[in-house]
Amino acid sequence: MPTIVVEVMPKAELLDPQGKAVASALARLGHDQIAGVRVGKRFEIQVDGPVDDNVLATVQELADEVLSNQVIEDVVGIHYEPETETAAQ
Amino acid sequence: MPTIVVEVMPKAELLDPQGKAVASALARLGHDQIAGVRVGKRFEIQVDGPVDDNVLATVQELADEVLSNQVIEDVVGIHYEPETETAAQ
Repeated sequence: MPTIVVEVMPKAELLDPQGKAVASALARLGHDQIAGVRVGKRFEIQVDGPVDDNVLATVQELADEVLSNQVIEDVVGIHYEPETETAAQ
Repeated sequence: MPTIVVEVMPKAELLDPQGKAVASALARLGHDQIAGVRVGKRFEIQVDGPVDDNVLATVQELADEVLSNQVIEDVVGIHYEPETETAAQ
């Protein structure tokens, strides 16, 4: 089934407490070369039927309106993957 | 600062309650063409200094051991991005 991947990250100018926590944990583990970590979300959206411009426009709108909170997050990528190994059953 | 992106998704054979909730919400909004949604994580790791094979190997190991839970999640991608707009401040 065709899959569209939507990537959402916290806005660069905002603090990302989850990322800071991961970065601190990595520093404690001795990984000094890691300067920072930010944690965002990755959605895999399975689409029923062919993926045309109409469907991509709908997903773009959903990414902006539903999947992300535009006050604190940016949609950093939308990719169309015809086949995926991690498709839902 | 060079950034390495690590993508983690719930294993395909496991239920993803968060994804199911999003899919149900989209269905209620009238988006019948969405057959399923899975929600995973996207890490942006800022690295201090040049990214060589050694650093990439370390990040691969961190992705498998720290950033993902191998019992329920798969690391589906590790990309090296020389520059990124959403870099931490």
